[in-house]
Amino acid sequence: MTGRLLRVEVAPDSLFGPENMPYGIFAPPGGDFRAGVRLGDTVLDLVALLGDPIFARPDLNAFLAAGPDRWRTVRARLRDLADTELPIDAVHPLNAVRVALPIRVGDYVDFYASIDHATNLGRLFRPDSEPLLPNWRHLPVGYHGRAGTVVVSGTPVIRPLGQRRTDSGAPDFGPSRRLDIEAELGFVVGSGSMLGVPVGVDDFAEHVFGVALVNDWSARDIQAWEYQPLGPFLGKSFGTSLSAWITPLAALTEARVPLPVQEPPPLPYLRGTAEHGYDIDLRVAWNGAVVAHPPYAHMYWSPAQMLAHLTANGASIRPGDLYASGTISGPAPDQRGSFIELSWGGTEPISIGDDSRTFLADGDEVTITATAPGPAGRRIGLGEVSGRILPARVP
Amino acid sequence: MTGRLLRVEVAPDSLFGPENMPYGIFAPPGGDFRAGVRLGDTVLDLVALLGDPIFARPDLNAFLAAGPDRWRTVRARLRDLADTELPIDAVHPLNAVRVALPIRVGDYVDFYASIDHATNLGRLFRPDSEPLLPNWRHLPVGYHGRAGTVVVSGTPVIRPLGQRRTDSGAPDFGPSRRLDIEAELGFVVGSGSMLGVPVGVDDFAEHVFGVALVNDWSARDIQAWEYQPLGPFLGKSFGTSLSAWITPLAALTEARVPLPVQEPPPLPYLRGTAEHGYDIDLRVAWNGAVVAHPPYAHMYWSPAQMLAHLTANGASIRPGDLYASGTISGPAPDQRGSFIELSWGGTEPISIGDDSRTFLADGDEVTITATAPGPAGRRIGLGEVSGRILPARVP
Repeated sequence: MTGRLLRVEVAPDSLFGPENMPYGIFAPPGGDFRAGVRLGDTVLDLVALLGDPIFARPDLNAFLAAGPDRWRTVRARLRDLADTELPIDAVHPLNAVRVALPIRVGDYVDFYASIDHATNLGRLFRPDSEPLLPNWRHLPVGYHGRAGTVVVSGTPVIRPLGQRRTDSGAPDFGPSRRLDIEAELGFVVGSGSMLGVPVGVDDFAEHVFGVALVNDWSARDIQAWEYQPLGPFLGKSFGTSLSAWITPLAALTEARVPLPVQEPPPLPYLRGTAEHGYDIDLRVAWNGAVVAHPPYAHMYWSPAQMLAHLTANGASIRPGDLYASGTISGPAPDQRGSFIELSWGGTEPISIGDDSRTFLADGDEVTITATAPGPAGRRIGLGEVSGRILPARVP
Repeated sequence: MTGRLLRVEVAPDSLFGPENMPYGIFAPPGGDFRAGVRLGDTVLDLVALLGDPIFARPDLNAFLAAGPDRWRTVRARLRDLADTELPIDAVHPLNAVRVALPIRVGDYVDFYASIDHATNLGRLFRPDSEPLLPNWRHLPVGYHGRAGTVVVSGTPVIRPLGQRRTDSGAPDFGPSRRLDIEAELGFVVGSGSMLGVPVGVDDFAEHVFGVALVNDWSARDIQAWEYQPLGPFLGKSFGTSLSAWITPLAALTEARVPLPVQEPPPLPYLRGTAEHGYDIDLRVAWNGAVVAHPPYAHMYWSPAQMLAHLTANGASIRPGDLYASGTISGPAPDQRGSFIELSWGGTEPISIGDDSRTFLADGDEVTITATAPGPAGRRIGLGEVSGRILPARVP
């Protein structure tokens, strides 16, 4: 390391100022993957800056496991350092580094916490019955997804093959014709819990380290044929994209908002003082054209309630577990976080620039970004989750 | 290590002779966890015997990842060594060692491959409709379970709390009243695959290392209320028990049997020469009384078909992934692998010794064992998966 120092200049309107500083895993040119934080258009190398070997690993899991006191100490130190001159070897231009999946995912759970999304999907998948099932207002409905196919933003997504229902009633097999996105917020578990000991609503911030953007790619034709009675499986398991940068909960203090009214009132194990939502505005761009603005503030169930429910039966959580909100959809048509909703089951094509679409075509790229209120009226950014569709590999 | 040698004596009718030799993770008195194989009533320490550091880890994952050539080489060497005198420090009495979960589970998938079980559950959960849904004979229905709560045989199971439907239509919250088992066979993935590249039916033995017994504990009241539309979640995620010993596929050559007729014929991606079943007989003991004899040979979908389906959409697999067959039930009433089937939804109590039950009571212990045909007319054992119910921890 040379002795040269520099000060990182961050534009006053940057979404990645010192009040944000999300964590990720990056490799500088010619170097190994390690932990860093994003500051403005740079990445700070935490190994070089803090000399702590916990950051030399190719995932954040050990730091996540270190727990909330450690997260607070490190964040406070980084906030101080961000205002000083830093060793030049600890600072890398963002566009010069490679990023990797920031966490080694333990279990991945996907919820279904938007009442607008659940109602829309109910109408589309089960047109002959009540869109919202009787359990929906009593518990955050969720299921386990595939942890091993969570990939970092930027990873291409190969169009999946699968069984599709045909008019004959029997299925055929081929590339999905209804490939879709789901714009979601993911919650990254830091501190684990013991088997048999539920995590209460108010213990949320002791266990959850931060949030990241999730695109839960979905093949609607495969899903529609397979999902009864045991839920989504191959319609989802071919890939789930996670943003490269995890925003610590501590950066989202100003984004907290009350939940929408929950009626009927939830059972006591789903109540507490941490049952708030977050005022996070998402933006979905399809080949560069913004097609939706899903508002996280409309979500019915809070992330603290999701965690309390997930563990209410005694299930344990581990550092690196990821649970996602489910598709974020608001009440307005342009607030819907999936194309099956935006195109109403493929019947109403969506304009994207000079083109139009119902579901994803090969070569399409979808980028989801988000911002939230930060200190002093500024906004903070949640990075982005992006992916391009590659053609199916037909055997 | 002393220079003393001994020959392991294995009774001629032992279920754990040299033709079996399942792998597990054990700790000798005062020692760390490491890999071993079971031979008769002893455990052979693979670090001491083979001097290979791959066996010094507290799980089998690195050995699983080493691939089928390595599995064959090690097995051949162990078969040779089993007939010789062994260093005394490499041999431990089975009853003197502790066992641990043999694998660090990646993803856990549970299938639903018994036509008798799926039909019975359909009748019980959806009495007003066709028991077998239209997709069932076209694909092996499955879903993701919770990997982080897979525990080794012998771990107590705490009765889960959860939401239960009441006569009012609204749920209450409390200990499950319909705690059940599911007697299953689990398949342990060794060699992984690449994202986007399906594993064909005939590549089964290149990827799957072996089989183990699984008890997928299930809270039927929690499950019945939560499972629509996204499938089982908290009704299953509180614990899944895995046997301590994994039987290599190579030990089950003589147990292969043709599948039952599949009608309609499966789509081409589910066909191949490896689509055979296994003639494995399970035995379910409830507080010592045998209450069921589920026959694996009756399973509709083969494990090779399950793997081909699981990856048909391009989903990758990793060393340590576990997929289970779903409850094994045969056509006869005493061949059913769950208590909800044996007691027909709790309406027909089951005799266990001087007692009777519908679902599990606190303190009950369930032990599942299994045997299969081995060489020369002998049988081999699949170890056991056992667990005792502890009372719910009411907050």
